[in-house]
Amino acid sequence: MGKIYDLIIIGGGPAGITAGIYAARQRLNTLLITKSFGGQITRKAVRIENYPGFKTITGFDLIQKFIEHFKKFKIKNLEDSVVKVRKTGKVFLVSTKSKKRFQTKTVIIASGADPRPLEVPGEKKFIGKGVSYCTACDAPLFVKKEVVVVGGGNSGFEAAIALSSWTKKIYILEYNPKIRADEESQKRAKKTGRVRIITNAVLKQIKGEEFVNSIIYQDRESKEIKTLKVEGIFVEIGSQPATSFVKGLVDFNRKDEIIVDQNTLQTKTSGLFAAGDVDDVIYKQIVIAAGQGAQAALSVSNYLQKLK
Amino acid sequence: MGKIYDLIIIGGGPAGITAGIYAARQRLNTLLITKSFGGQITRKAVRIENYPGFKTITGFDLIQKFIEHFKKFKIKNLEDSVVKVRKTGKVFLVSTKSKKRFQTKTVIIASGADPRPLEVPGEKKFIGKGVSYCTACDAPLFVKKEVVVVGGGNSGFEAAIALSSWTKKIYILEYNPKIRADEESQKRAKKTGRVRIITNAVLKQIKGEEFVNSIIYQDRESKEIKTLKVEGIFVEIGSQPATSFVKGLVDFNRKDEIIVDQNTLQTKTSGLFAAGDVDDVIYKQIVIAAGQGAQAALSVSNYLQKLK
Repeated sequence: MGKIYDLIIIGGGPAGITAGIYAARQRLNTLLITKSFGGQITRKAVRIENYPGFKTITGFDLIQKFIEHFKKFKIKNLEDSVVKVRKTGKVFLVSTKSKKRFQTKTVIIASGADPRPLEVPGEKKFIGKGVSYCTACDAPLFVKKEVVVVGGGNSGFEAAIALSSWTKKIYILEYNPKIRADEESQKRAKKTGRVRIITNAVLKQIKGEEFVNSIIYQDRESKEIKTLKVEGIFVEIGSQPATSFVKGLVDFNRKDEIIVDQNTLQTKTSGLFAAGDVDDVIYKQIVIAAGQGAQAALSVSNYLQKLK
Repeated sequence: MGKIYDLIIIGGGPAGITAGIYAARQRLNTLLITKSFGGQITRKAVRIENYPGFKTITGFDLIQKFIEHFKKFKIKNLEDSVVKVRKTGKVFLVSTKSKKRFQTKTVIIASGADPRPLEVPGEKKFIGKGVSYCTACDAPLFVKKEVVVVGGGNSGFEAAIALSSWTKKIYILEYNPKIRADEESQKRAKKTGRVRIITNAVLKQIKGEEFVNSIIYQDRESKEIKTLKVEGIFVEIGSQPATSFVKGLVDFNRKDEIIVDQNTLQTKTSGLFAAGDVDDVIYKQIVIAAGQGAQAALSVSNYLQKLK
């Protein structure tokens, strides 16, 4: 174990990386631990047009710029999964999947969120055989095929727009009677000429033999059960925070998000902060997560000053 | 007056511009009113190294990128000063210095902050004759001269570093016994070889004939009164929010910052939001202000949905 870090950042998406940049400028002795750099953005097929300063950029390119910026500061980092955070006295103990243990005076949880699963029969069976949680990764496997995107929010529409470069036809299946995506995304999806929207629909089952060949859904109004022949299912029904390692030290809201003071970003445990999609900030956006990374690192710096 | 806007954004710095980008993507009928695009960044001589995605960029270049991004959306905008915001029923009335009046369903105040004045004898007399609030604008006027930066925070150090390319010697005058700037900035200032730091010092007076030729300060410990021969005084003692036009509709904290719910960014008046340096967010940083611009615009969108 040896030395005690000033700060361990858990997560390498926009919030974690920005926290790292700010911590480095404060000359904090920092370690960043992440499963993989980039966070959710790397799973998204989107062109990002709402991170200020970049009129339009792919998620992949933007996160590369974040990573380059981070690496400039030569902050210690480790690709590993955190399995547990404990606090003894004033010191936190962070344990990882590969059995490493670290001590630190403060922690920023910036572990983001994982895709929310559909929880319908057939989903698990067909993961990698038609069911995908990563449009950017898997779109090229569905050239000229028919696919469905489950979820009619912004990320569903962005997925559909991205898929339209590869696939023949994209259905968007939305549970609610009305589409939630912003009008800009709706307009762009329409322009592809390949997107068909089905609202008021509950997904019931994913079917296939070796690979997916169809889904069963119910029309919530007519109650009719319908079949849609598709070879790909892209899941875009939101995400759930990745926080199991920190139970006991923080409070969760009903979405399982970590409750923080939205100004200092401190959790109920002093010295333990959360930033980005993992906390209870209402809006999940790259620039908001980045801003929160900065906020959390500055709060850490204030906290450490007071410890002295 | 005519039509009613969905949203009027007051301010054209990082928070206002980001709010505009988000509002445009939500297809809100938006008007942005600003004294001048860019906000405080345009007054700073800094190289910005903590806006994620840009390893190092001048404030001027970064704000140009923000403005280009904003202009892509063809959002209506007006260079003017807002003098008053009123609310009648559910509609806000916004009046400007050039006697224009607009109606809108929601307002985002993103008017940032103005430099805090020194309030010592001689300050007003010598504005533009040695006293400057804008390092970026005025540094080239002091080639090979000796100058003082008042304020030993990050912006004071950044100003000193920028001045070191032009001036012979830069004093940094700090009221507190300890420097508040981060260590990275302190290190870079030291590296210039031209910066001398004076702590525990209260500025008493600015003296000169036609132009500044010296300042008088007191050592807070020895109580000794001292004279420093300088031809330039760069004021970097923080900023004060620009909010006089909105009194009565919002509550202020003791720093005159607008109190908001830090998650929705709504003030005590429904439909009236604030974002960036003008509100009571603890940390004043470009990426945080930008994040708040996004938060406020998304809250506006939610608010308008509920009005329907």
